[in-house]
Amino acid sequence: MLVDGEWRTDVRRDTGESGEFERSETSFRNWIDGAVPEAGADPVESPEFPPEPGRYHVYINRACPWAHRVAMTRALKGLEDVVSLSLTRPERHDDGWEFSEEQLDPLYGEDYLRDVYTRADPEYTGRVTVPVLWDAERETVVNNESEEIMRMLDTALHDLGNGVDLYPETHRERVDDLIADVYPRINDGVYRAGFAGTQEAYDEAVDELFEALDEYEEHLKTRRYLAGDVLTEADVAMFATLVRFDHVYHTHFRCNRRAIHEYPNLWGYVRDLYRTPGVAGTVNLDHITRHYYKSHGSLNPKRIVPTGPDVDFSAPHDRDGKPGGPPAELVEDAAAD
Amino acid sequence: MLVDGEWRTDVRRDTGESGEFERSETSFRNWIDGAVPEAGADPVESPEFPPEPGRYHVYINRACPWAHRVAMTRALKGLEDVVSLSLTRPERHDDGWEFSEEQLDPLYGEDYLRDVYTRADPEYTGRVTVPVLWDAERETVVNNESEEIMRMLDTALHDLGNGVDLYPETHRERVDDLIADVYPRINDGVYRAGFAGTQEAYDEAVDELFEALDEYEEHLKTRRYLAGDVLTEADVAMFATLVRFDHVYHTHFRCNRRAIHEYPNLWGYVRDLYRTPGVAGTVNLDHITRHYYKSHGSLNPKRIVPTGPDVDFSAPHDRDGKPGGPPAELVEDAAAD
Repeated sequence: MLVDGEWRTDVRRDTGESGEFERSETSFRNWIDGAVPEAGADPVESPEFPPEPGRYHVYINRACPWAHRVAMTRALKGLEDVVSLSLTRPERHDDGWEFSEEQLDPLYGEDYLRDVYTRADPEYTGRVTVPVLWDAERETVVNNESEEIMRMLDTALHDLGNGVDLYPETHRERVDDLIADVYPRINDGVYRAGFAGTQEAYDEAVDELFEALDEYEEHLKTRRYLAGDVLTEADVAMFATLVRFDHVYHTHFRCNRRAIHEYPNLWGYVRDLYRTPGVAGTVNLDHITRHYYKSHGSLNPKRIVPTGPDVDFSAPHDRDGKPGGPPAELVEDAAAD
Repeated sequence: MLVDGEWRTDVRRDTGESGEFERSETSFRNWIDGAVPEAGADPVESPEFPPEPGRYHVYINRACPWAHRVAMTRALKGLEDVVSLSLTRPERHDDGWEFSEEQLDPLYGEDYLRDVYTRADPEYTGRVTVPVLWDAERETVVNNESEEIMRMLDTALHDLGNGVDLYPETHRERVDDLIADVYPRINDGVYRAGFAGTQEAYDEAVDELFEALDEYEEHLKTRRYLAGDVLTEADVAMFATLVRFDHVYHTHFRCNRRAIHEYPNLWGYVRDLYRTPGVAGTVNLDHITRHYYKSHGSLNPKRIVPTGPDVDFSAPHDRDGKPGGPPAELVEDAAAD
């Protein structure tokens, strides 16, 4: 077990000299055998991590939008009995993600998630993040990068699930492009606004964020899902941020120019996804709000949790009848600018 | 000039043992001759402060909702040439309200508002607040309680203005009741939420605040103004809080259950008042947002000013044709509970 101090650096809050928030990279980047990392790529050959039911476990936190991608993919694909899942405590303090009486480590009974990381690598001193894809057989971290875990569940473990395919061959390039567009502009965009160290960095981050939201609002006017006619990983990535927006990012990260429930198409889209079987069970607003407001003293010194808006994610929407619409040219348009 | 430290106590942020925010009282409570303090009262006899044009000055801050009542009353009654007005700097730090190159003290060229207070009373060590009604002849503070200054401008100086009466004899009792209801529930309610020291105090304050907003939303459905058919001081008091709500109280004070622009009647009412001649000139959103977000490190340590929602106070509304509606029974109803 490492000295407490070594775990205290929260690089998610690191700001460069210009006051801009910069996210650092994660460390374990192995793949389950047969995963398809990106459009056009051959399946990964990785015999040390075979796609076996009951072998893999994911450590997540219900508050974390990156972890949410993994929980949501697992639920949509019906992999609950194939990959086990456990939670860390909603609040995250100086010692990092921790287990508790309510959120036990089911594998080793550790106190902190860092202890699981050091099981994989006793010398590990890097970031202790969720999600973690854990191989209970080899007792190591397979991967702790959310996009890659989502992709592994979706492709390497596809044959063990219910048949739902969030990365269909016909849409792969589009899904990759969408994920690559949504990540910096929206998923990370809210963090760049919230953890900006200067007014200039905040102003720029917020302008970019709302420009992106405005574009996707227009995009979703004629398309049920981001990639058009089918629910994909791009929607999973987008949903994880949108579902947290009005309760957390709007107030806590000061992204208060507009709430998601004030965008007709984005708001219908969130409800459409929320009502998709399996999804609602992955959303825990109590954990989400407790985590953000209680964990970041730099933004909320009193650590009081606001009530948040009265919005009903399960309210009916009118998107069922929406056609898939034309292919998603948004990303191509943006790239052409 | 007093030692800096003595001025640093900001009792607006005092919280009792229960974590509830308690506002303390102001100190100078004189009246201009002829003012009517409350419904049914005789005019005050106060010959040392006669109602003379050019004699009185108000020190305000554009951010402060209490000061806003005075500026708005002065504008609605056309008293600009009768009572002069000057501003303090938007930001308020450890030394309290201060003057600046842009916001000079036109009377004495002082650096801080506390210096104006000590001109009135060299022994003064109490709160240095805005608004201040200053008598330039006797060189003293007449009064620094916003409701009373508003009432004095409205009654004692009425004959010097344009004839607009915000405290008409037929509505006085109703206006007093409305002001007394709006003050703790809404005007001060947002502060009780924002400066709550515990989760319990916050939860209670926010519940009470939104219960009151919901009631007034209903109240304004059938009435153009709070007292029914005529604009009164009660509207001035309500407007000062509502016009700040979406940009400041919603995010900074975490009153994020609902924005004012999401209440159809309250939002139409705010626009109706904003478009009333004289009012828009008393609203300075730049000063308002800079003040709150930059002055309260306990709520916003990075002191970054959020952009705030895209709302247009000057947008048309449909309240012109609204009848006065039935008399305001709201307060009576509430009192009967």
